[in-house]
Amino acid sequence: MKCGIIGAGAVGGYYGGLLAKNGFDIHFLLHSDYLYVKKNGLFIESKDGDYHLSDVNAYSKAEDMPLCDLVIVALKTTENYQLPAMLPHIIKDNGIILILQNGLGVEKEIADMVPKASILGGLCFLCSNKVGPGHIKHLDYGSVIIGEYLHEYRPSGINGNMKLIADLFKNAGISVQLTENLGLARWKKLVWNIPFNGLSVILDATTDQLMAHPSTRCLAENVMREVITGAKHCGFFIEKEYADDMLKLTEQMTAYKPSMKLDFEAGRQMEIEKIYSQPIYESASAGYDMVSTRAICLQLEYLDIKAAFDRSDSH
Amino acid sequence: MKCGIIGAGAVGGYYGGLLAKNGFDIHFLLHSDYLYVKKNGLFIESKDGDYHLSDVNAYSKAEDMPLCDLVIVALKTTENYQLPAMLPHIIKDNGIILILQNGLGVEKEIADMVPKASILGGLCFLCSNKVGPGHIKHLDYGSVIIGEYLHEYRPSGINGNMKLIADLFKNAGISVQLTENLGLARWKKLVWNIPFNGLSVILDATTDQLMAHPSTRCLAENVMREVITGAKHCGFFIEKEYADDMLKLTEQMTAYKPSMKLDFEAGRQMEIEKIYSQPIYESASAGYDMVSTRAICLQLEYLDIKAAFDRSDSH
Repeated sequence: MKCGIIGAGAVGGYYGGLLAKNGFDIHFLLHSDYLYVKKNGLFIESKDGDYHLSDVNAYSKAEDMPLCDLVIVALKTTENYQLPAMLPHIIKDNGIILILQNGLGVEKEIADMVPKASILGGLCFLCSNKVGPGHIKHLDYGSVIIGEYLHEYRPSGINGNMKLIADLFKNAGISVQLTENLGLARWKKLVWNIPFNGLSVILDATTDQLMAHPSTRCLAENVMREVITGAKHCGFFIEKEYADDMLKLTEQMTAYKPSMKLDFEAGRQMEIEKIYSQPIYESASAGYDMVSTRAICLQLEYLDIKAAFDRSDSH
Repeated sequence: MKCGIIGAGAVGGYYGGLLAKNGFDIHFLLHSDYLYVKKNGLFIESKDGDYHLSDVNAYSKAEDMPLCDLVIVALKTTENYQLPAMLPHIIKDNGIILILQNGLGVEKEIADMVPKASILGGLCFLCSNKVGPGHIKHLDYGSVIIGEYLHEYRPSGINGNMKLIADLFKNAGISVQLTENLGLARWKKLVWNIPFNGLSVILDATTDQLMAHPSTRCLAENVMREVITGAKHCGFFIEKEYADDMLKLTEQMTAYKPSMKLDFEAGRQMEIEKIYSQPIYESASAGYDMVSTRAICLQLEYLDIKAAFDRSDSH
């Protein structure tokens, strides 16, 4: 089974690295790190043990890659505009695409690009950063929830493709859970991502700081309940207690910077569209206005553009 | 007519300065600038002409002040906890108290402290900063809207005290407008203050930057409409077009830092309670939850406490 991985950052480098290390036939499509990785390979510094992959199948162009049975999309969603020019070169007819991205709406977007492929969505529970060219630092966790994408996130049941990928990942030592309801899994992840990603950027705070102050804890809770209500309007039922569980979990975590905060600090565009705009839009279309979420989204859009201007000024 | 002024900052220094300059019997209660002003007087740098008051009646303790017919409260609302120990020493029985402060609920608080006094509320449309000890810089505007406070902001009609104060101010060259509905005037000012004070602090932005970006312009507009709806629930009717007018006005202003932004930058506590918490509470009590306003308020509370911690760490 030939597997292509688009992006070798915190997500693609971590999972792709584990698959390659365990002997699977892995091909990485890289951008900025291509020359470095081609020459030096990938170095994964991990709490489960560091390792170095010296001989990596690295490509700078989709056209140069072999056709793959499985393509793992591990780009930031802000780079998805590049996918229509890439995917048709990489994916076999009736191949499987596994999308390891945040937010809502990524599967539909990609399903429209490659209508013959079977689309799986994956949610990563992973603390990992790219700390240098070809250098990934894995801090904690690493499990994935995988579900099949059907039109409008209809519940899917567990199918053969899902089991195939789950076995592949498990053989590489990655913990996998399968879900019959990918939409529900995505909304559940948003319950945490929407408050903590945005507030950490806007207030320049780590999760422990947001939890320590009663006002931001209250705001995070308000937003969580709003997201749960939004999900309900879209047909995905999340128990109210899930917000309490997520707050407790966050309280027990050490000081943590959500991915959007890391993106913002590194001068990368933030994944506002898929994590905020799309859920807000879906919920509003179903008759519920997520007002606090929208306020946070609008603040983030301001900061995102301002940072882009500031960067262009300094060039 | 003996007039005491509590606070000689951007507001008290500007209006008190004009009254003193025009020959009225003015007595300033000062805190940090007492010794400086006692020795050097007040210097007002103004777009209408600079002037220096060399001989200022300055006091450091309320107990040392003469009893006054009129007391103008020109403290930040965050300092109002000091007033119960001050006002009884300064105000004559049946005297007039004019409160030149921002937000909602200041009149009730002070009426409870001095039940015999007649309470007027004033809304200042003033761009002015204290730039050094006894040194006020007046940038623009300067008019005041004055109304009488009756229990629960019931409309009052125009009475003798209001006319008396209006004449006093007009004789000092200050433009005054009287209102029969102080509550309405306070809510109308909040329509601007709530979006622009908070967002300028949270996003580290001037008004022109907030207006230039469609997302923050949209958020400001959403919040304005929310405040108008909140006011309506509390019995104060503001036309919808008022939000459009305020947005247009803000667009025409030059780059401007609202008072809360200046307070935050100077390391002063922000006036969150009177500008945010109180209106949110009043509106919620009347059955309407100002959700975006509450999100902004909770963010400000976080930043306010964080700044206080950061200051204490650096000592």
